[in-house]
Amino acid sequence: MDVRDYIDSNAREFFDQLKSWLAIPSISADPGHHGDVRASAEWLAGHLAGTGFPTVEIWDTGPAGSPGQPAVFACWPAQDPGAPTVLVYGHHDVQPVEPLEEWHSPPFEPAERDGQILGRGASDDKGQVLLHTLGLRACLAAGGQTSAPPVSLKFLIEGEEESGSPHFADLLRSRADRLSCDMIVVSDTTMWAADVPSMCTGMRGLIDAQIDLRGPDTDVHSGSFGGGVPNPLHAMAALLAGLHDHEGRVTLPGFYDAVLPLTSAERELFARLPFDEKAWLADAGSSQAAAGEAGFSTLERVWARPTAEINGMWGGHTGPGSKTIVPSQAHAKVSFRLVAHQEPADIAVALREYVAAHTPPGIEATVTFGGPGVRPAFSPLHSPGVQAAKRAMERAFGREVLFTREGGSGPEADLEEILAAPLVFVAVGLDEDRIHAPNEKVEMTLLLRGAEAVAYLWADLAADRAGITAAR
Amino acid sequence: MDVRDYIDSNAREFFDQLKSWLAIPSISADPGHHGDVRASAEWLAGHLAGTGFPTVEIWDTGPAGSPGQPAVFACWPAQDPGAPTVLVYGHHDVQPVEPLEEWHSPPFEPAERDGQILGRGASDDKGQVLLHTLGLRACLAAGGQTSAPPVSLKFLIEGEEESGSPHFADLLRSRADRLSCDMIVVSDTTMWAADVPSMCTGMRGLIDAQIDLRGPDTDVHSGSFGGGVPNPLHAMAALLAGLHDHEGRVTLPGFYDAVLPLTSAERELFARLPFDEKAWLADAGSSQAAAGEAGFSTLERVWARPTAEINGMWGGHTGPGSKTIVPSQAHAKVSFRLVAHQEPADIAVALREYVAAHTPPGIEATVTFGGPGVRPAFSPLHSPGVQAAKRAMERAFGREVLFTREGGSGPEADLEEILAAPLVFVAVGLDEDRIHAPNEKVEMTLLLRGAEAVAYLWADLAADRAGITAAR
Repeated sequence: MDVRDYIDSNAREFFDQLKSWLAIPSISADPGHHGDVRASAEWLAGHLAGTGFPTVEIWDTGPAGSPGQPAVFACWPAQDPGAPTVLVYGHHDVQPVEPLEEWHSPPFEPAERDGQILGRGASDDKGQVLLHTLGLRACLAAGGQTSAPPVSLKFLIEGEEESGSPHFADLLRSRADRLSCDMIVVSDTTMWAADVPSMCTGMRGLIDAQIDLRGPDTDVHSGSFGGGVPNPLHAMAALLAGLHDHEGRVTLPGFYDAVLPLTSAERELFARLPFDEKAWLADAGSSQAAAGEAGFSTLERVWARPTAEINGMWGGHTGPGSKTIVPSQAHAKVSFRLVAHQEPADIAVALREYVAAHTPPGIEATVTFGGPGVRPAFSPLHSPGVQAAKRAMERAFGREVLFTREGGSGPEADLEEILAAPLVFVAVGLDEDRIHAPNEKVEMTLLLRGAEAVAYLWADLAADRAGITAAR
Repeated sequence: MDVRDYIDSNAREFFDQLKSWLAIPSISADPGHHGDVRASAEWLAGHLAGTGFPTVEIWDTGPAGSPGQPAVFACWPAQDPGAPTVLVYGHHDVQPVEPLEEWHSPPFEPAERDGQILGRGASDDKGQVLLHTLGLRACLAAGGQTSAPPVSLKFLIEGEEESGSPHFADLLRSRADRLSCDMIVVSDTTMWAADVPSMCTGMRGLIDAQIDLRGPDTDVHSGSFGGGVPNPLHAMAALLAGLHDHEGRVTLPGFYDAVLPLTSAERELFARLPFDEKAWLADAGSSQAAAGEAGFSTLERVWARPTAEINGMWGGHTGPGSKTIVPSQAHAKVSFRLVAHQEPADIAVALREYVAAHTPPGIEATVTFGGPGVRPAFSPLHSPGVQAAKRAMERAFGREVLFTREGGSGPEADLEEILAAPLVFVAVGLDEDRIHAPNEKVEMTLLLRGAEAVAYLWADLAADRAGITAAR
């Protein structure tokens, strides 16, 4: 039986299994649902054992006094000990569901409608995790055997991704031996469109900070003192306005030093995507694209260029009416989206330098970072793993596969860094899947195509083992 | 009996009268005290009648449906119909008293201590109004008669100054005939110091506005859209930062066109004031003077140069933690201190033009003004009225009188504009009188010197009548 036939004849069972799992409200951000997160981990562990994985474990996370949510680890060695090892990453926790009244069917009573499964987690990320077991079974069936996959497979499906993966890096470090691999397949992103299959090749990193400026000890009367004492709101406006030059480039010292330039191949491939800027702006509710960094298209800016954004600012009188004061304080929250190979720690240093250099006499500045930040993740187009996945996706979809990136951040860079293996993004979600919003859905046929793609991928990697292991 | 003897022998009675008046809590901003504002007006009317004014009236203010607080008008024509007419302006309402727990003695139980009278309104402005009746009685006594003063005197003591004088301009317009005069004496400012008598020669005007910028319809995720859609906080920071050039000058088109330059005489006189910048900055709780407008001293900047101040700004995420959004909106409150002869309406037009010119594509801006603004007031140093008042002050204080200005604004410009008469500021308050704050006080000897000065002034103006009337 070939891969596609196997998948088609097992599709009904697969969807029913997914719906059972989606019925478990594994909301990691809600302490009231932590029991459900564990139930979700147990469901998945049972399912993986049923699929044939000889090793399945539930891994607790977090320190003893303040435990986190459990991850599921599974391992199935290839019969051939020389075959490459692939780690599959995904997550089994889901986003909260508020506002509940906007759901057309209850978020944890999965519904099937018009070729879609509706429910929280259908696309992000339970559907995309589960396609791997269907794909693996198809691969095994097509290979005519069930005793072992063509590559050694490890699954690490975490339970805290929607809460910012607070214990994930620690987990990776403490279990690095058991997680060692030649390549990491991440199935938690999106394709360009149902009829434009694509693979993500990078995710932006992030660092965020609060800037506090202090001038006079208290708000003072602008009639008596205006023009004579420094106004922290003026200083903040100037400091924030100066974050960009007239070409929209970020002015932090050395900000672009580590930025990997877009290759002409990447730019060409991005340009081939059927990008409807008007529709994209309508999604953002914006009437016009930003002037933005000169010399780059909107997609390039959002995916492959670092940014500085002011996320909030406040100070002085913000209530009704006027109050003619020189305010005592000004505050701003800023964040920087980073691209490979910018290091959050370097950008933090640069921000501190910038603020120090732009704080006028009579104003005191402090910069407080929200955390260590998130490293950008990067998956080079021409790596053997990406090329193998592209071939597998193209065979499943019957079309050329293009490349995208994502503007946001997950724990992917930690995987790449700590496990020292390259990332390959294989996913079949869509931007219109309403992840994190009411009425999340997944396209059922895309899940099947995804399962097909990974079935081809494992076989391909086993055949091309030299390429994969040499690339490390 | 000469002026000083008369004042000294009547000082005790004067202070007791003042304390009776101060006991009336005439807080115009508090509707619960509006009965007290009327009682204060009635007390003053009785006192003026007792002083000998043949005409004393209480003038209601505001429209019939929404009455304001009453002003007191009194008139006493000179015996000589050719004598100049002087209008004395002050106010009988007082500031609120919160925080009450910080008062060392109850604000409306006036106390005498170390040569000071403590109580709300002692300096601002009841003490400075009442010195006029003592001065007038001394003038009459020294002239050896009680039937009429040497100049025609009109008093207009309003009851809404601490509430922004909302009905004052209307009152002036509707009563302009009865208020006609050759010169206006304002007794509601301060001197440089108890041992550095001075006169104010100008007050800055004001216009305030709120600027609202709108970008995306809602806050959007900076991972998905950051760098691609315009961020209204960036636009606001740039717009506000651009309000000043690198020399600290305000960049609104035509902003300085109507500004009366400081004369070298004024600058020289300002420079002679014993200005202790460190102490002044300590009052403001500021560690350093603003860089400010290049080419001007701190006093010149605060008194005689117009400013643009950001009074408040807000937008995006202002709560704890980070939120990586491109916010939908940004807001700022700005105000402009104006100097003669800037017109608030012209500055409003310039601000609208500036905002329109500095709003990037994809952002919508609105500018909303808090009201029509306040015109700057100006009293030229070399006018006969100012020179006569200077002579009178110097005689009373036995020292040279210097000149100052005030950075803030009252209804004085309306008096000058509507009654078409020059302003002369004769006042003996001090900056350390804690007006608008707990433990307001007035120096008792300064009130007596003020009374003495006005006694000399009326006699001087009568003698120099040609100068005053010719100056109009």
